[in-house]
Amino acid sequence: MASPTATREAPPGAPAHRSTARVREIVGWYSADNPGTKANLARMLNHGTLAGTGRMVILPVDQGFEHGPARSFAPNPPAYDPRYHFELAIEAGCNAYAAPLGFLEAGAAEFAGEIPLILKLNNHDVLYDEKDPFSAVTGSVGEALRLGCAAIGFTIYPGSAMASRMYEQIRALAEEAKRVGLAVVVWSYPRGGGISKAGETAIDVVAYGAQIAAQLGAHVLKVKLPTDHIEQEEARKVYEKQAIPIGTLAERVRHVVQSSFDGRRIVIFSGGAKKDNDEEIVNEARAIRDGGGFGSIIGRNSFQRRRPEALKLLRRIMSVYAGETP
Amino acid sequence: MASPTATREAPPGAPAHRSTARVREIVGWYSADNPGTKANLARMLNHGTLAGTGRMVILPVDQGFEHGPARSFAPNPPAYDPRYHFELAIEAGCNAYAAPLGFLEAGAAEFAGEIPLILKLNNHDVLYDEKDPFSAVTGSVGEALRLGCAAIGFTIYPGSAMASRMYEQIRALAEEAKRVGLAVVVWSYPRGGGISKAGETAIDVVAYGAQIAAQLGAHVLKVKLPTDHIEQEEARKVYEKQAIPIGTLAERVRHVVQSSFDGRRIVIFSGGAKKDNDEEIVNEARAIRDGGGFGSIIGRNSFQRRRPEALKLLRRIMSVYAGETP
Amino acid sequence: MASPTATREAPPGAPAHRSTARVREIVGWYSADNPGTKANLARMLNHGTLAGTGRMVILPVDQGFEHGPARSFAPNPPAYDPRYHFELAIEAGCNAYAAPLGFLEAGAAEFAGEIPLILKLNNHDVLYDEKDPFSAVTGSVGEALRLGCAAIGFTIYPGSAMASRMYEQIRALAEEAKRVGLAVVVWSYPRGGGISKAGETAIDVVAYGAQIAAQLGAHVLKVKLPTDHIEQEEARKVYEKQAIPIGTLAERVRHVVQSSFDGRRIVIFSGGAKKDNDEEIVNEARAIRDGGGFGSIIGRNSFQRRRPEALKLLRRIMSVYAGETP
Amino acid sequence: MASPTATREAPPGAPAHRSTARVREIVGWYSADNPGTKANLARMLNHGTLAGTGRMVILPVDQGFEHGPARSFAPNPPAYDPRYHFELAIEAGCNAYAAPLGFLEAGAAEFAGEIPLILKLNNHDVLYDEKDPFSAVTGSVGEALRLGCAAIGFTIYPGSAMASRMYEQIRALAEEAKRVGLAVVVWSYPRGGGISKAGETAIDVVAYGAQIAAQLGAHVLKVKLPTDHIEQEEARKVYEKQAIPIGTLAERVRHVVQSSFDGRRIVIFSGGAKKDNDEEIVNEARAIRDGGGFGSIIGRNSFQRRRPEALKLLRRIMSVYAGETP
Amino acid sequence: MASPTATREAPPGAPAHRSTARVREIVGWYSADNPGTKANLARMLNHGTLAGTGRMVILPVDQGFEHGPARSFAPNPPAYDPRYHFELAIEAGCNAYAAPLGFLEAGAAEFAGEIPLILKLNNHDVLYDEKDPFSAVTGSVGEALRLGCAAIGFTIYPGSAMASRMYEQIRALAEEAKRVGLAVVVWSYPRGGGISKAGETAIDVVAYGAQIAAQLGAHVLKVKLPTDHIEQEEARKVYEKQAIPIGTLAERVRHVVQSSFDGRRIVIFSGGAKKDNDEEIVNEARAIRDGGGFGSIIGRNSFQRRRPEALKLLRRIMSVYAGETP
Repeated sequence: MASPTATREAPPGAPAHRSTARVREIVGWYSADNPGTKANLARMLNHGTLAGTGRMVILPVDQGFEHGPARSFAPNPPAYDPRYHFELAIEAGCNAYAAPLGFLEAGAAEFAGEIPLILKLNNHDVLYDEKDPFSAVTGSVGEALRLGCAAIGFTIYPGSAMASRMYEQIRALAEEAKRVGLAVVVWSYPRGGGISKAGETAIDVVAYGAQIAAQLGAHVLKVKLPTDHIEQEEARKVYEKQAIPIGTLAERVRHVVQSSFDGRRIVIFSGGAKKDNDEEIVNEARAIRDGGGFGSIIGRNSFQRRRPEALKLLRRIMSVYAGETP
Repeated sequence: MASPTATREAPPGAPAHRSTARVREIVGWYSADNPGTKANLARMLNHGTLAGTGRMVILPVDQGFEHGPARSFAPNPPAYDPRYHFELAIEAGCNAYAAPLGFLEAGAAEFAGEIPLILKLNNHDVLYDEKDPFSAVTGSVGEALRLGCAAIGFTIYPGSAMASRMYEQIRALAEEAKRVGLAVVVWSYPRGGGISKAGETAIDVVAYGAQIAAQLGAHVLKVKLPTDHIEQEEARKVYEKQAIPIGTLAERVRHVVQSSFDGRRIVIFSGGAKKDNDEEIVNEARAIRDGGGFGSIIGRNSFQRRRPEALKLLRRIMSVYAGETP
Repeated sequence: MASPTATREAPPGAPAHRSTARVREIVGWYSADNPGTKANLARMLNHGTLAGTGRMVILPVDQGFEHGPARSFAPNPPAYDPRYHFELAIEAGCNAYAAPLGFLEAGAAEFAGEIPLILKLNNHDVLYDEKDPFSAVTGSVGEALRLGCAAIGFTIYPGSAMASRMYEQIRALAEEAKRVGLAVVVWSYPRGGGISKAGETAIDVVAYGAQIAAQLGAHVLKVKLPTDHIEQEEARKVYEKQAIPIGTLAERVRHVVQSSFDGRRIVIFSGGAKKDNDEEIVNEARAIRDGGGFGSIIGRNSFQRRRPEALKLLRRIMSVYAGETP
Repeated sequence: MASPTATREAPPGAPAHRSTARVREIVGWYSADNPGTKANLARMLNHGTLAGTGRMVILPVDQGFEHGPARSFAPNPPAYDPRYHFELAIEAGCNAYAAPLGFLEAGAAEFAGEIPLILKLNNHDVLYDEKDPFSAVTGSVGEALRLGCAAIGFTIYPGSAMASRMYEQIRALAEEAKRVGLAVVVWSYPRGGGISKAGETAIDVVAYGAQIAAQLGAHVLKVKLPTDHIEQEEARKVYEKQAIPIGTLAERVRHVVQSSFDGRRIVIFSGGAKKDNDEEIVNEARAIRDGGGFGSIIGRNSFQRRRPEALKLLRRIMSVYAGETP
Repeated sequence: MASPTATREAPPGAPAHRSTARVREIVGWYSADNPGTKANLARMLNHGTLAGTGRMVILPVDQGFEHGPARSFAPNPPAYDPRYHFELAIEAGCNAYAAPLGFLEAGAAEFAGEIPLILKLNNHDVLYDEKDPFSAVTGSVGEALRLGCAAIGFTIYPGSAMASRMYEQIRALAEEAKRVGLAVVVWSYPRGGGISKAGETAIDVVAYGAQIAAQLGAHVLKVKLPTDHIEQEEARKVYEKQAIPIGTLAERVRHVVQSSFDGRRIVIFSGGAKKDNDEEIVNEARAIRDGGGFGSIIGRNSFQRRRPEALKLLRRIMSVYAGETP
């Protein structure tokens, strides 16, 4: 007779809350966490179109705060309404929806339980343009619990003179979140006086940013897609000496995944500014998939498109991750 | 038989504490809040001349702190007495009266229960003129409760190098206020090293300031009436490409309301410095009304006029919002 | 039959702890405070030579900290001993004695209950000469309770780049003090990079400083005697347009009292540096009295004189406030 | 029959824990303190060679932190061992031994109860040479209790731009210490951008530093021996006008004692850098005694000598204070 | 009959948790600590190849955070996986394994109880290159307990303008750690604006850094191997006058050990950057041993070698400390 564990593989059509072997494997990497946090990680991995695959597509909408409302929502005016994004994330079958306090408060009750939520705990705006950026803490673990979230989200800017203050903030918030069973998602976006503009997406810098987030105890890392630029002289010597392959996007993704505890942390990639060409975005997803990345976080490229086009694009991306021919 | 809810519409002459359908609709937008906070929002919407209309006129008197006593009160010396403003707000039928700690302490017992109060929790003076302004916290949620307030008020200066500190302060204060059932009113006044003087009332900046306050979890947003100036280059491209209508004041109000969660947050507009021409102020109220704004916050234009004239002007403004011919 | 309240007027010769109508009126202005704080305000108003008159003369001795021991006490060496000031305040019939922690600790037990005490909670020294002064917090509400004080004292420097930090400190300390039934005395001394030297005693600045202290929730305001200089350009326009009378010292005192919630806050005036001419000081008291001020805070002009001369001067000043011919 | 109190004078040969009249007088100055703190003051005054005289000689060893180990201990290598200093203080009959956390942890159990201990709660090193020095807090009141100390020690640098931060730190630590019955010893060493090098030991500055420490609530003040230099122009006028005698070291000591609440606070003097000439040090002790000082704090001049010479010197100094002919 | 204590010497082959006389002697130096902390010190001293010898070799892996992942792990790619380091430390017989939060979380459950763990509580990255470095706090005592650690680790940078902030952080963390029975390991790495590049490993500076860490209450000090450079002019005079022997590495190690409370604190030495020549590293271990040092902390020189070579090198080093012929 098979052991109960051996028969736990979810059969086709089974309810999404039965974890697949892949989900159980991924959750197993977080062996230091309590069952509450493990459950919230599983909740995100078991939700939506990609449920059970171990891949994730997350909808983040913090651009209203980060870039202002017109730049964010005027291209698709229904997106001014916070409920729009809940609906988009649910209808597209995303694994989770991430936003700042105000946006989540405006829909958390109406869409309660319909999609895992991530409360973005810090935010930055561009009305003050500083050389060394700092994101103000604008939410709390208590608010995340009150709103029924599965995780907290937090942005760090390695390379900023303010980075250590952000590290100390996420340290305290992550400890508190883990104690109450929430998962921790860290946006690691190197920026600031310590690095050049090109350096923000340099392969060595992106991999370093992923490592820092992982060392800070994040469960899910969100980074930018890296270029083949190398920013730091000391790093260049190693990349050259060890002949680390960074020629293709898939190779660079693979290097970032390796830099994230040898692939034992969920690392997902952001799509960046809106692109008119769907194909380009889908190709990026293919590279992420081929490089062993865990998925995408698609903001402007979804909510700045009309809803039907956004749904179409999100489904194509998810098909890539599901291994189907999109 | 009609459902109990369907018959809840307050009949003419009914006590103001029965919410109208419009008030219930507005309160419904704040579905993440506890009944205590909802009750305090309803308390403000159900008070005074505009009770039940979903519109608000608030009397704010923090100018003694912000500009000094002579500049604020010498034009109408009875206004030196803190009781004057309680009486003015009550007699004019305002929805609420907002002031710093000292002014509220000086009348909260005498006028207990006669008008919803908003304790301004931070203040700034002009004896030190800094490039990047910061408002010191001068009150607390505990003081607001002690004085029987319906809400806390807080000013942020997006565009100031000190903005992130103010965001972190209101974050903590708002969380505490919501926990004890108070409403949160945020004055969002972009200022500081990040923007030009003209930029302080630029349409893109005012809309951005409203968005930030809403994302910070404010229930009521107070902003300045915007001009058609556009401050940020990145924003200008969008306003032009999307042909966002900002030619008239009503259009600009509409854009700010849209930028406030597509109209699902109460956003009211400040009148600014005293104007001698009543007509101009009434016209502004018409534009606010036509643009879908929720009302006005009238400080200097009320208490710097002799009381009969102030009452006359406030009544004209309220008539505009009530949809009557003023 | 007369009501118990109507007969509460203290008869001549009655013990000082029966409040006169005037004291009850003044205490009535603080209607937001708890009975403990009201009792401590009454305790100060009912103590000493001016008991029951609604006027106050307070002895402050923080100069040892502020200017150093020799500059403060060498002119009258018995004043090096902290007990000297307790005795002086008691013998002169002052309403209260204010000093920093060390000075109060050195006599609070010996003179327990003989005079209301005010613990100065922050202090500044001149060994470091900064452009934007800041007074360090050197006491606490807990220490004030331990030493049996009636009130806390706190200095703010409006006009200093550090002002907002001091406002935030007194906000927290005042809230705590009021909760435990202490009164709050604020020294409002504009200084720092925001204003000129002459501006420190300019009429617009002194009145503004009084307003700020009142808005911060102080029960008793201590300010400097103002000159007829006007510091701020925006203020000058108003003083000229409204023709605010500031020609005589009594007029200026009246304007400051008006700026202190239209006279509904106790505002007292400091004598400043030692003057050799008693007449000048007595004349200042007359102007304070004629302008509706509530009294004087006399430090260097009392303890830097030999005791008999100090007592004689203090009695003359108190006679002025008592309305007698001194 | 004599009262029990009248007979409390300790007879010759009585155990040292019976307080003499002088010790009771000194402890009586601290009438605001609880019996626990009074007992710890008495414990130091009743310990060692000078027990009962009201004089104190304290061994301080924080130079390892302040100047580095070689500069501190290489001249007498046994002093590298933390136990050496416990033994030296005990054998020499010092009233107390003061050191930072690490040094006390290394002997507090072994020498438990053999000598009163003072935990130095802040320290400074010279690896970073700043214009405005700041001593980091390196211990706590809880650690002092854990190690069985009689007192906490704390250094302030009046004259430093960081002074107000140190004042705020000692304020909080002293309040906590007094609550749990510890005594408070403050090293007041004026330094920093506000004063010249010569000013650090100027008579006006040293007296001012003593006054500040006393006003901050210290029980025992430790200052440097003053020179006849006068640093502050405003002070010079007073010293000259009042003809304050500062010509001899004894006169200057007397002035500092007077500046310490007219002699009602224990003020002791530090010996400074190591001197080869014993006579000079003994002469300083004579001047301290003749000026009414309460004793010496002898660090480098004891532990940088070979033990027999150190013991000999310390005994000579104690003989001076005991009034014997050394 | 021998006393139970006299017979406690662990016989050959006895389980490692019986302390040898040497381990009991070392633990005895920490007489101020509670049994919990003593037990954790013994736990590290009694673990691995060097169990019972009083010597320690620790594997630290914080370079992923400090230098980035490629520079740290690309030379030996299996090291990207956090489990690799647990296995390496266990297999090599190290006394303990030290790493930041993320790395420990990724293996603490899987390798529970197999090796004493040290949670590095602060970390620094090189994406922002500051003159006065500061390591952000990235872990907590609570996290160390949650992960089953024996100790906390903390880095200070004496010589940095930020040093006092780091001292205040470790003070609070160490107090908390000792209260819950953890040991405290301090990395003392002088760096920053106060010293030159050569000064970072100057003999006077390294000895001073060790002293500071010991005075801060550290149980185990980790310093760099010193050169014969002398950085500070005041120190040079003493080294020359006292003719302190610093010519050989063993002599310099001896001086650092003496500077660490005369050898009564465990002080271990870091190997620094990877060296290709094993012999050089083994020779350094011989000098450490001959100078009385307690061992090595070997990071890059172990995990940047292929595993068999790393194990071979670590065993040679341990043989040196065990007194065998390696």
